Amino acid sequence: MSNNNIEPQLSDILGDPARVLTGNAIEEKYYSFTHGRERGHADALVFPESTEEVSRVLRFAYENNIHVTPRGAGTNLTGSTVPLYGGIVLDLSRMNHILEIDEETLTAVVEPGVILEDFQNEVEARGLFYPPDPGEKKASLGGNISTNAGGMRAVRYGVTRDYVRGLEVVLSDGRVTTLGSKNVKDASGLSLKNLVIGSEGTLAVITKAILRLVPKPEASRSLIAAFPDTESGISAVPEILKANLDPTALEFVERKVAERGEAFTGVSWPFHEAGSYLLMIFDGSESSIDERTDKLNGLVEKLGAIGVKALSVEEAADIWKVRGALVTSIEAVSEQAPVDVVVPINRTADFLRFVDSQSAKTGMALVAFGHAGDGNVHLCVVRGKLGEDEWKLLHDINMSAVYRDAGELGGLISGEHGIGLTKRKYFLKYADPVALSVMNGVKRSFDPKEILNRGKSYHVVKGSSDESTIGENGRLYGFRHPQDDQGLQQVQSY
Amino acid sequence: MSNNNIEPQLSDILGDPARVLTGNAIEEKYYSFTHGRERGHADALVFPESTEEVSRVLRFAYENNIHVTPRGAGTNLTGSTVPLYGGIVLDLSRMNHILEIDEETLTAVVEPGVILEDFQNEVEARGLFYPPDPGEKKASLGGNISTNAGGMRAVRYGVTRDYVRGLEVVLSDGRVTTLGSKNVKDASGLSLKNLVIGSEGTLAVITKAILRLVPKPEASRSLIAAFPDTESGISAVPEILKANLDPTALEFVERKVAERGEAFTGVSWPFHEAGSYLLMIFDGSESSIDERTDKLNGLVEKLGAIGVKALSVEEAADIWKVRGALVTSIEAVSEQAPVDVVVPINRTADFLRFVDSQSAKTGMALVAFGHAGDGNVHLCVVRGKLGEDEWKLLHDINMSAVYRDAGELGGLISGEHGIGLTKRKYFLKYADPVALSVMNGVKRSFDPKEILNRGKSYHVVKGSSDESTIGENGRLYGFRHPQDDQGLQQVQSY
Repeated sequence: MSNNNIEPQLSDILGDPARVLTGNAIEEKYYSFTHGRERGHADALVFPESTEEVSRVLRFAYENNIHVTPRGAGTNLTGSTVPLYGGIVLDLSRMNHILEIDEETLTAVVEPGVILEDFQNEVEARGLFYPPDPGEKKASLGGNISTNAGGMRAVRYGVTRDYVRGLEVVLSDGRVTTLGSKNVKDASGLSLKNLVIGSEGTLAVITKAILRLVPKPEASRSLIAAFPDTESGISAVPEILKANLDPTALEFVERKVAERGEAFTGVSWPFHEAGSYLLMIFDGSESSIDERTDKLNGLVEKLGAIGVKALSVEEAADIWKVRGALVTSIEAVSEQAPVDVVVPINRTADFLRFVDSQSAKTGMALVAFGHAGDGNVHLCVVRGKLGEDEWKLLHDINMSAVYRDAGELGGLISGEHGIGLTKRKYFLKYADPVALSVMNGVKRSFDPKEILNRGKSYHVVKGSSDESTIGENGRLYGFRHPQDDQGLQQVQSY
Repeated sequence: MSNNNIEPQLSDILGDPARVLTGNAIEEKYYSFTHGRERGHADALVFPESTEEVSRVLRFAYENNIHVTPRGAGTNLTGSTVPLYGGIVLDLSRMNHILEIDEETLTAVVEPGVILEDFQNEVEARGLFYPPDPGEKKASLGGNISTNAGGMRAVRYGVTRDYVRGLEVVLSDGRVTTLGSKNVKDASGLSLKNLVIGSEGTLAVITKAILRLVPKPEASRSLIAAFPDTESGISAVPEILKANLDPTALEFVERKVAERGEAFTGVSWPFHEAGSYLLMIFDGSESSIDERTDKLNGLVEKLGAIGVKALSVEEAADIWKVRGALVTSIEAVSEQAPVDVVVPINRTADFLRFVDSQSAKTGMALVAFGHAGDGNVHLCVVRGKLGEDEWKLLHDINMSAVYRDAGELGGLISGEHGIGLTKRKYFLKYADPVALSVMNGVKRSFDPKEILNRGKSYHVVKGSSDESTIGENGRLYGFRHPQDDQGLQQVQSY
């Protein structure tokens, strides 16, 4: 069927014409995204308010071969919500209720449109804690789950995946099912829940989530340690991680990058003679934090630190303000493209060295900082004064080089943002073609008509230019396998 | 082709006739399992020594439509390694090398046949720690991954899934791929790694694993708290979990069950007037353990404990000896069938009450104890003096009732053993038919000929009696969904 006249049918399905928009009534933001260069189109934008409505919309789309792009708060950094193939945009932001906070089992049941910071505030008011803490607090929980969002506190607590106990999802044909449960352990059949987490809306639409909570830590303290140069700061990271100090967060910032944030916020960091900093948070009882602070002082002194400082609440707020402003300070003066490469924690220095040499070679500012405790390096690729064509070309040259180097160091393209649209080209090029083909087979087993968030992340659209890209540059992400070496078995230290 | 004459071809593939056995040369244990009532058959038993050999065997099996049953140490409790449909048994026990322990990234690369306790010893000798600690220390790591094995330390550290960073797997057609990596974070494409974990050999054969390690805790202390009755002991559990005490283990044993272990080992527990006990382990620095021990004392006193005792190393060894002997003490006098139901942590008391009433009603001993900290209740269903037919009948009556009750309480059939063969019937009956159909679709996308560990866990063999079982008793495991209630949306507190 033609998709041009679906408004009356969708209005009928939702029983409310005000929740179905078409044409000029659809705001521009629904076609594009935060760093929006890619743009799509849509025949309708709908606002379901219940699982049942999502189910009915999907059944209608399935029966009529209409593509569907689900979205939460639309804060993604990769274009994963751009409706590339048209059809229906499914805005889940009205499904934003916290349905239950169960203090006995330390779980919550939420709808996908609940905003992260609203949820964090609600559970903390009850003495509980939801540890995943990605930088974007206005993201929806459904979006966090769809990208397996990480954030700073992952060093101690893990990522979003580790806090999802169960999901209610609607399949592409409208059937509803539950994956997982409130239970702590689960060895009952395939873990489809874990497959849907991080699948960027390509497998099913999340309509409820059961999230795991923990008791709120009694206290929290921030510390800053300064090192003479990049190398000494970065190489302290594995030592801190091995020392039973149990840091909640462990961030790395070079002095030259901190200066950008200082200039932007007007706040000054200590130890201006430093080449790099480590910022840390310790959680726990006051006495346990005291004990770990003492140990940390001794350890970083041995590792050549210039100084270390435990921060008062006010000092900490200032320090984190600068850390939080790093991206904003860049965006205030230029367009930038965000990168969230992850490398093994002992290869961060190698990766940063490569980034510096690449920046020197191409003249493009590549500003790096990030989650040192888990190898998740954030890069801002800064456009500066480049014209459109030059920017596109240089951006691509730098990204190809950066993702290739990350792969050679044993890293991955995305640690926490997902692949979406913007990193697809590189992901398809460098990933293992066998794994990619299995991912696409799994996609078709969930979504045989390939209508859900088509052409995103790993999803290869038949007959598109995607196909020629796959494995173009060989397998960077993975071991080498027998089929690569005429049967020679070889484990790389990747 | 007929499978009767595959020995020469397999010998040729492995280049070593001594690693291919057929007929009477195959030991009985390969046809059955630990609690072996189910029995299969096999045309050949092979012992590959490399990924490449596994790949060649699978390619051969795929091309010739031969079923393949992978196995590690064969310690499973569910019959998941019984070669129900004949063909090739793939014994991975010779792939038992620890390939790398990387102290910088806190990871290890292992082959699937490495035995859990060997690995634990090796990493602990280096000041590192592999937290998953299922009861069976002679299990293989490949088996642990295939069942997402849990164990006592899951309360603090999580289960096997939480320690698998990457897998090398061979697909049913012999292709080799890598899923995951050494990296801490991963938002790059579908998490096929997490799908293979817990899939009980139905999707692919694991040939290598990258495992996450943590620093070895500085100290560890065991504690025992005694309560007047079952109810008061169990209801203390959520309070302890909410109190920021961070227990590593939190086990529940009723006094009447402890008595069995005492009689068997000759060791006596304190507080004989108790109705139930909680056993705990605290890990960390000595001073942090002291602090938490003090807090625990105050808390359990308020919760009505008869007494609490921090145990010396020698006392702890004795106490845990009794806990460890509970199953053995039963098996010394009778056949038993193991159950590892998991329920939400606030429903354990309800479940135990049901088990007691069921036992009283049917006259069958159902001995319960287990991982109270994560709701994972272990039951021994004790045969006693029952004849074969009576045992089968009463076992089935009790299991149907127990799994139904667990489902009604929001629980699941298996917390850590897996479904395998023995729990399949109940799993197929009570699970959500929609989720089951997706699981089977995913199975076929990995293994289109359905030759890998056929008919295990969720895998429904077309044309078999399985099909009539599905959903027979409705959906117990999951929310209720719109399709159940003529469109009525309803969240259950499951």
